[in-house]
Amino acid sequence: MQASGSKQLHSKAPIVTVDVVLLTLKDEQLCAALLQRPREPHAGEWTLPGGFVHTDEDEDTLAAAARILSTKVGIESPYLEQLQTFSGPHRDPRGWSVAIVYYALVPHDSVPGEAPAPRAEHAPATVLSIAAPPRLKWRPVDDIRSLPFDHLQILRTAVERVRSKTLYSSLPVHLMSATFTLSELQAVYEALLGTRLDKRGFRRRIEELDVVEEAPGAPVRGAHRPAQRYRMKRHGAQRLAVSPKNLTL
Amino acid sequence: MQASGSKQLHSKAPIVTVDVVLLTLKDEQLCAALLQRPREPHAGEWTLPGGFVHTDEDEDTLAAAARILSTKVGIESPYLEQLQTFSGPHRDPRGWSVAIVYYALVPHDSVPGEAPAPRAEHAPATVLSIAAPPRLKWRPVDDIRSLPFDHLQILRTAVERVRSKTLYSSLPVHLMSATFTLSELQAVYEALLGTRLDKRGFRRRIEELDVVEEAPGAPVRGAHRPAQRYRMKRHGAQRLAVSPKNLTL
Repeated sequence: MQASGSKQLHSKAPIVTVDVVLLTLKDEQLCAALLQRPREPHAGEWTLPGGFVHTDEDEDTLAAAARILSTKVGIESPYLEQLQTFSGPHRDPRGWSVAIVYYALVPHDSVPGEAPAPRAEHAPATVLSIAAPPRLKWRPVDDIRSLPFDHLQILRTAVERVRSKTLYSSLPVHLMSATFTLSELQAVYEALLGTRLDKRGFRRRIEELDVVEEAPGAPVRGAHRPAQRYRMKRHGAQRLAVSPKNLTL
Repeated sequence: MQASGSKQLHSKAPIVTVDVVLLTLKDEQLCAALLQRPREPHAGEWTLPGGFVHTDEDEDTLAAAARILSTKVGIESPYLEQLQTFSGPHRDPRGWSVAIVYYALVPHDSVPGEAPAPRAEHAPATVLSIAAPPRLKWRPVDDIRSLPFDHLQILRTAVERVRSKTLYSSLPVHLMSATFTLSELQAVYEALLGTRLDKRGFRRRIEELDVVEEAPGAPVRGAHRPAQRYRMKRHGAQRLAVSPKNLTL
């Protein structure tokens, strides 16, 4: 239990945290970032990245989520979207609590490895005072069977949202490296959906969504020229394009 | 400003409210419920129904939203779904605040009129102690041009969500009376979308969604028998059915 806050305080106002389901695709598997908690409750256990709102610096809970990813995981400006708010008297042993949850997608080649990765220059004084910075690991979401608090339910909700949005939006583009081929993009959609897609239908969909463009670099002429590489259009960085119709599976 | 809570408290933990966008369809217009605030901030102004989480009685924020509708508007068990959480230092003059927002749909023939409608038996002691119960009014959402706090932005977000879900789900069924004809249901979809729909395509969609069934009562035989009446299937009361494809406009 935390020392701060009297019993009376907690019975009056809920505890407010911001938690983030941070996802990447590694070896064709959707993986979530887990941090080892440096303190109670659940000290030493692996949970989703999260923290309190800092009302003296955060502009809103989206900014709090970005700050948490920056200071605790070392990731800047990923695709970040609100998932849902979870609440109740029993989900956190410290008392009646509200968790405003975001999900974030990052390309695998831009994620920190499995080592402590907090950036000192972004960390507020309260974080610097913690003895051990949180340790990070990535685990395939389908292999995660239990998590402290209600984080397993939160993770499942986020994964369901990502898979559902894959059917009708450009969301998976945010998992791609700086440049990629359309075959690589199709493989990512297929990994998320767990099924093969028709190549022509998929390419028509990507064209409709209008979020990728040819990457600069002269295409090689000849019989064995490599596949054209693409990149996300600049306007696509923090938005989604959606289709009125789900992909046909 | 409220007397409760020191400056120090507010700079440490955000204020948490639950607010509800309560919608109905009246004269083919989508209307929102507004309550007159009985106290500061914005005393006397009309806002969305809302209130603090009661951590001593609410099981979660969904339960808090249901309690607020019951005690402040007199509506029980409407279709209720989480919309989004709004937050920041400037949206509420009392301090850095979080509003967990729900939207609710009710049939017009089950809503209270424009009069005070709190139910004393459901009201906790803190509400009973308020001198004047909140007054209620219904206004077409497209006529509402300003609201205190960030409630106009919240209202617009809810209306956009409802109209978007009308394209691919059974959501508008929750605006219908106990029984209705398919023509009446189509008129509600058309009012929400602001456009006419093809009758055959609409009926095929409703059949696919599998949320309505014929209401009991022997159909009248003969040349001028009235249209078959339908009702929501029991399993549809607190869920949505969705289609993989938007309605064609």
